[in-house]
Amino acid sequence: MPDAPTTSPTPAADPASKSMDDIVALCKRRGFVYPASEIYGGINGFWDYGPLGTALKNNIRDHWWRRTVEAPPLGPDGNPVEVVGLDSAIIQNPKTWEASGHVGGFSDPRVDCKECKSRFRADHVRGIRVTFTGAEGVFWSSTTNTGMDAEADTQRFIDRLIDKKAEKERPPVFTSTRVTFHPLDDPATPRAEIPCPACKTRGSLMEPRQFNLMFESETGAVSGETMKVYLRPETAQGIFLNFKNVVDTMRVKMPFGIAQIGKSFRNEVTPRNFIFRSREFEQMEMEWFCAPDEAPQWYDFWKHERMKWWESLGIDKSSLRFRDHDHDELAHYSKMCVDVEYQYPFTAPGFGELEGIAHRGDFDLTQHQQHSGQKLEYFDQERQVALQNQGVDKEEIRARSRYIPNVIEPASGLTRAVLVLLCEAYTPDASRPSGMYMKFHPRMAPITAGIFPLVNKDGMPEVAQNLYMNLREKFAVQLDVKQNIGKRYARMDEAGAPFCFTIDGNTLSDQTLTVRHRDTQAQERIGLDHVERFLAEHVEG
Amino acid sequence: MPDAPTTSPTPAADPASKSMDDIVALCKRRGFVYPASEIYGGINGFWDYGPLGTALKNNIRDHWWRRTVEAPPLGPDGNPVEVVGLDSAIIQNPKTWEASGHVGGFSDPRVDCKECKSRFRADHVRGIRVTFTGAEGVFWSSTTNTGMDAEADTQRFIDRLIDKKAEKERPPVFTSTRVTFHPLDDPATPRAEIPCPACKTRGSLMEPRQFNLMFESETGAVSGETMKVYLRPETAQGIFLNFKNVVDTMRVKMPFGIAQIGKSFRNEVTPRNFIFRSREFEQMEMEWFCAPDEAPQWYDFWKHERMKWWESLGIDKSSLRFRDHDHDELAHYSKMCVDVEYQYPFTAPGFGELEGIAHRGDFDLTQHQQHSGQKLEYFDQERQVALQNQGVDKEEIRARSRYIPNVIEPASGLTRAVLVLLCEAYTPDASRPSGMYMKFHPRMAPITAGIFPLVNKDGMPEVAQNLYMNLREKFAVQLDVKQNIGKRYARMDEAGAPFCFTIDGNTLSDQTLTVRHRDTQAQERIGLDHVERFLAEHVEG
Repeated sequence: MPDAPTTSPTPAADPASKSMDDIVALCKRRGFVYPASEIYGGINGFWDYGPLGTALKNNIRDHWWRRTVEAPPLGPDGNPVEVVGLDSAIIQNPKTWEASGHVGGFSDPRVDCKECKSRFRADHVRGIRVTFTGAEGVFWSSTTNTGMDAEADTQRFIDRLIDKKAEKERPPVFTSTRVTFHPLDDPATPRAEIPCPACKTRGSLMEPRQFNLMFESETGAVSGETMKVYLRPETAQGIFLNFKNVVDTMRVKMPFGIAQIGKSFRNEVTPRNFIFRSREFEQMEMEWFCAPDEAPQWYDFWKHERMKWWESLGIDKSSLRFRDHDHDELAHYSKMCVDVEYQYPFTAPGFGELEGIAHRGDFDLTQHQQHSGQKLEYFDQERQVALQNQGVDKEEIRARSRYIPNVIEPASGLTRAVLVLLCEAYTPDASRPSGMYMKFHPRMAPITAGIFPLVNKDGMPEVAQNLYMNLREKFAVQLDVKQNIGKRYARMDEAGAPFCFTIDGNTLSDQTLTVRHRDTQAQERIGLDHVERFLAEHVEG
Repeated sequence: MPDAPTTSPTPAADPASKSMDDIVALCKRRGFVYPASEIYGGINGFWDYGPLGTALKNNIRDHWWRRTVEAPPLGPDGNPVEVVGLDSAIIQNPKTWEASGHVGGFSDPRVDCKECKSRFRADHVRGIRVTFTGAEGVFWSSTTNTGMDAEADTQRFIDRLIDKKAEKERPPVFTSTRVTFHPLDDPATPRAEIPCPACKTRGSLMEPRQFNLMFESETGAVSGETMKVYLRPETAQGIFLNFKNVVDTMRVKMPFGIAQIGKSFRNEVTPRNFIFRSREFEQMEMEWFCAPDEAPQWYDFWKHERMKWWESLGIDKSSLRFRDHDHDELAHYSKMCVDVEYQYPFTAPGFGELEGIAHRGDFDLTQHQQHSGQKLEYFDQERQVALQNQGVDKEEIRARSRYIPNVIEPASGLTRAVLVLLCEAYTPDASRPSGMYMKFHPRMAPITAGIFPLVNKDGMPEVAQNLYMNLREKFAVQLDVKQNIGKRYARMDEAGAPFCFTIDGNTLSDQTLTVRHRDTQAQERIGLDHVERFLAEHVEG
């Protein structure tokens, strides 16, 4: 159960860099992402994935599944770790969410501004008390920042304040400052002094209140069977529910993982930043079960494996970072947690959450064991034998070979991964007719190659069609016969197709065609019979 | 919008054939399908897909997507038809479901039995009035059968009745009978005479009532934004919502299709027959848009393409059939509809619905045009040019080149396809240790091959591991080193792996291994370096 994802809003990115407005417009224009129910004026927090967006999402989904379930990474012993797949229902018995703590606890304290009607997570709003040394008094500000950036941002704010004063009345009146943070939900914080982070009105923030994020529904059609149910806010609990089933039926041995990809729902107060925070989204979660004393090493293992995976999508290393959670950010049951963060256009130069890797201890299985009355202990026969061979005494063997497994959870958003690849790929380039191009890794690109007859006659369409029919069994190719070649290149640049193959007059005589490389716009000729190998090398490389 | 799927319950299948109880037990035992929330006593109508079930479902999903979107069939002109993918949200603006008719109409008339508390779809319950000729009076019975089987079943019932009488008092008193059907919701039907189809109590059926099948929820966290929403009961409407977006952004031309795979929800009164009718299920739907005058030919095209697709999953032709809907079964907007039916163990010797292919006319786009106020007409430029060239007069050109497209909809259930492949594969075989095996087509099997070292020493595990690592990038292989080889074969028989490769003492000297074929249990030796080609040929073949 990762917390509702958070971002670190920071000063607007350099206007020269990627703009979210441009990215959102491209997504609509080229069929990556459409607002849901657009013909009915939309619906806040819901998005539909168009033909290219669906292909991109499927590519990420399949790559995660392949590298997590079908061909998982090698463990410390050099053998592949063991992970099995699962696909559990979105609607489960509601006791699930009582046990997991979501019914009671999956709520955020909300605070409303009575002036501008903005709503914030109360635990994200912090009063900032600035004491100026060398001059009178105290100044209260506020921030909705969390994490490492908040302090630095505040310092920049103070620095600007001092500079401004300095320009007017040199030498500066304020020679130093002291900054302290005060959570809004701390009774000692003078709420009347805190300005609304949005409209800056002082004293307009109301009393914080709890708000549950789960969507509710009702199942059962026959009287007596009717019950209130919830749309899952995470896929993880479906995995814990099936821990016993998997252990009993799949011959798995500790340590092992259960992974699933699927939709989750959270009735977010402020869905925002395009598909970054939506109310319906898709997750890729894996629960890794292991002996308690081995959990720290597996936490470390998955932390680094997950970063390698993100890099394998073609994301620049400088756009990714780890952020270890501070102790006070951790859920009470969580022992360690680290986020993989990405530098989104709307957080730059700061970073925002992309994936959380959490050491959840035995919290979840213990909770489900208590609430269900089913034993969720694991008897570790291999460990028992090993300890016996070491001559360890019986009491200790018993204690150490029968345990509730600890859990390491790498939890990421598939739809958020789509956003990251869209942001990462978007590359302004004024020299091109399209003004930009989408620099997807060839393995992730929704279209791997365009196939064009230079003109729609003289036998070229037939050769193109033939090539297309051969390639379409293995690669995401698109045949495009319309308009001049420049326009067709421009369309492929917007779609992010890394290659275009053009059949021209020479093709018919020498059986070669032109490959145009998206990123460099360079062209080369290769043999018609070489095209399949060319693609295989670039897609797998 | 296919109707809620229906089955034709018929006399129990021959006990010697496949039993649903056995199939359900295998699914649990081998991790194909688990009851959802099992540790909490389950939840009626919801299922989780275990490791093997998820793999099987993904294989079907990917095969449908490949043959529908990525490499669609060739059209009548010999070129591939054009279909694009989509992935729309489960929750849409509620106006969607007003326009589609689901808010007002997606309800079934239900009738309860006040004795046994059974609930039926009132339109499925029919009184059967039997008039005996040659003897006194009238006899009332009832059926919940629909479709072609009902009449035959009733005739069998009557025949048995006559035979029974005949034995007692020959010659028979009843020389002939006349059978008429009377819908329960027809006021002329004497409800008091009709026995409950379940408990057979006469006169216990209550007044039919309407019951909407959509799950409801509420979205929006800020006052003023809150609205009642629905979980989609079908993926189709998400496609109609995006018809305009796709036309505007994807350069598609009539005719073309939009396809999507995703979850849908229906609060079924009586979820039953394992995963056949569940409340949360997955659909594979395609909406094919075409000019109205070409719709009948496309209806025919897709009808046959879809049957070919089902056969490509390895389903025996004799287990599949078409059933054209009678005129009185059609929704008022539907012009033609045909079901692809499968002979499920619980319908045998009858058949039950697997996929519906419907000619929906312009109903959906017209409804959404009216409710949204957005023009959903299509201007067919190619047709305009063609008609101009034919010298057709302007008025007619205008009428025929600007139209609301007609829709042909092949709509099938992904989770129902899983059930069909499970039923089709289940093969009792008393001669095997497992007592049965799962005869999946190699392309669909969750595990393509097991890889076994004959014994876990003498260098065999290393060769097996090496082979496994090479093959896992391309095939669903599983390494199994534990227990004797017979038990390992038995496990693979239950999982339905078509091949097992055994590394034995000879492998180290002559670089060959044993292939064991699941269906024949025959074994042959092939070269280690031949294994990849062997699998490629069988999986693609």
